[in-house]
Amino acid sequence: MEGRFRSHNRAMIVLFTDFGPAGPYSGQMKAVLHKDAPGVPVIDLMSDAPACDPMAAAYLLAALAPAFDAGTVFLGVVDPGVGGVRAPVMVEAGGRWFVGPDNGLFAIAARREEEEAKWWEITWRPGSDWPDDLARVIYVDHFGNAVTGLRAETLAPGTVLEAAGARFGQRRTFSDAADGEAFWYENADGLAEIAVNRGRADAALGLALGAAIEVHAPPAR
Amino acid sequence: MEGRFRSHNRAMIVLFTDFGPAGPYSGQMKAVLHKDAPGVPVIDLMSDAPACDPMAAAYLLAALAPAFDAGTVFLGVVDPGVGGVRAPVMVEAGGRWFVGPDNGLFAIAARREEEEAKWWEITWRPGSDWPDDLARVIYVDHFGNAVTGLRAETLAPGTVLEAAGARFGQRRTFSDAADGEAFWYENADGLAEIAVNRGRADAALGLALGAAIEVHAPPAR
Amino acid sequence: MEGRFRSHNRAMIVLFTDFGPAGPYSGQMKAVLHKDAPGVPVIDLMSDAPACDPMAAAYLLAALAPAFDAGTVFLGVVDPGVGGVRAPVMVEAGGRWFVGPDNGLFAIAARREEEEAKWWEITWRPGSDWPDDLARVIYVDHFGNAVTGLRAETLAPGTVLEAAGARFGQRRTFSDAADGEAFWYENADGLAEIAVNRGRADAALGLALGAAIEVHAPPAR
Repeated sequence: MEGRFRSHNRAMIVLFTDFGPAGPYSGQMKAVLHKDAPGVPVIDLMSDAPACDPMAAAYLLAALAPAFDAGTVFLGVVDPGVGGVRAPVMVEAGGRWFVGPDNGLFAIAARREEEEAKWWEITWRPGSDWPDDLARVIYVDHFGNAVTGLRAETLAPGTVLEAAGARFGQRRTFSDAADGEAFWYENADGLAEIAVNRGRADAALGLALGAAIEVHAPPAR
Repeated sequence: MEGRFRSHNRAMIVLFTDFGPAGPYSGQMKAVLHKDAPGVPVIDLMSDAPACDPMAAAYLLAALAPAFDAGTVFLGVVDPGVGGVRAPVMVEAGGRWFVGPDNGLFAIAARREEEEAKWWEITWRPGSDWPDDLARVIYVDHFGNAVTGLRAETLAPGTVLEAAGARFGQRRTFSDAADGEAFWYENADGLAEIAVNRGRADAALGLALGAAIEVHAPPAR
Repeated sequence: MEGRFRSHNRAMIVLFTDFGPAGPYSGQMKAVLHKDAPGVPVIDLMSDAPACDPMAAAYLLAALAPAFDAGTVFLGVVDPGVGGVRAPVMVEAGGRWFVGPDNGLFAIAARREEEEAKWWEITWRPGSDWPDDLARVIYVDHFGNAVTGLRAETLAPGTVLEAAGARFGQRRTFSDAADGEAFWYENADGLAEIAVNRGRADAALGLALGAAIEVHAPPAR
């Protein structure tokens, strides 16, 4: 409940959208917030969440949210049904609040909290086929690193990941890999991330959003 | 005068520029504003306004501004004459303030207010060839939708738009169109926007900033 | 010491990173700052500093920093050694504070102050091969202009710059150049910048980050 970003009794509104870094949509939303919640800091956490892909986005948000303290309000907008009649939903999970479309975007963040999350205005339920961890690339960052929906803590030491026909061993950090070496590591948000030391994993390995990941458990001894 | 973004007695500064989402120019402008107007919220409405195209930008700004309440200050910077000797201008229209280059950027927002706008330091006057609505693509958003300079309220029901050799009927919203169907609809800012349901209009239709739009009125009955 | 962005007794935190304009990293950093330094304005000065290139970034930051007043805190993150064991460093130079990786990022900003900068936790020293001015393209902006690491005040009137096989004379500003003409001029930060009037220098001239610049002094009379 006490996240890395402690609250000191101050609320915070965190934006998690696929609006893109430019364009008017983020600004219009911030204008409303600065008026209706004057003085409350509004943070652009992501404006390039997986576009129109609430499933990938759900695993990404679930990895990012725990660092924020109780009381934080996440406004999430990732929705293929733009302009359609989608019920909004409000979820309280782990003391954090999530507001956005009722399409599963908050399902994983809610599932990972010990106490049961409270949902208001639910009309959508996560299908039973949404796994606890998603074996796909759910984000490619500015440096070309491919973030997966797999929490590193769920992977046994020695696990090898396979994607786009290549296999990657684990390194603790970039500086443990040789120049140009491809590997996976646990990123700062706890997710398995495929990277190339001093290179771009997306270009070098042909990895893009949605690419399937295969998990090869270490051989039993 | 009472916009969607009501002021609650709080001023707001809104940036509308072609500076791009990264780069130092927005940050340098915000640094000045946070110093000279401490505590006043500064909102990045657009950092990707039509680059060096004050005419297209004027129609876009005119569509976005009415949602903001009286007292809002828009800082607009879209200017092909970078670094030249361009007089700055300050305009008051509909209770909102516009500050920026005297190149027509605020002409359409001012023209659309009932009461006459007040201009200070005018040296430029909109040419008589700037229409009330602009039949061009004035913005392509992050999702590939092509926003036109035509206010939807000026188009009769049944109007067909033509662009890049294709014709588009009107739909109320995305979910009224079939998957992959191209159509136009009235966007949240009141403008006619060409879109493809679950697709990118820019790629699918070859639409880019500046593309000409032809308006086909519905046949008389 | 009294920069263009005067402080009026208010602190300001300025971010200078290569995190990119989208993605979660900037937002996560801002979340921490809004919690640990509530009420202090946080400005995104650059999120597209030269990626993983502290040398180019050092000359860019040194050109941007003097406009900010004493008391400003710059958080700089440009580092090829992501995740490695790099000591953080804190530097006070000209009354401004710089916090970030100990890899030379702040070396040029510190060197250009008259009084000696104070460093804490130094383990890295700028190599003697870092010149006072860098004859390379250190940034390509949103408009395609190529910013060099050369302070214009160090170039004699009549200096011709050469890059990518072409030579450029100096103009005072864009409007002094013919349409389509390539030239260099002193930009608002005091750096020599190569531009094309109403065009993109990057595309027209083949200029990219890191391109070498040759300086041709004017002939002696």
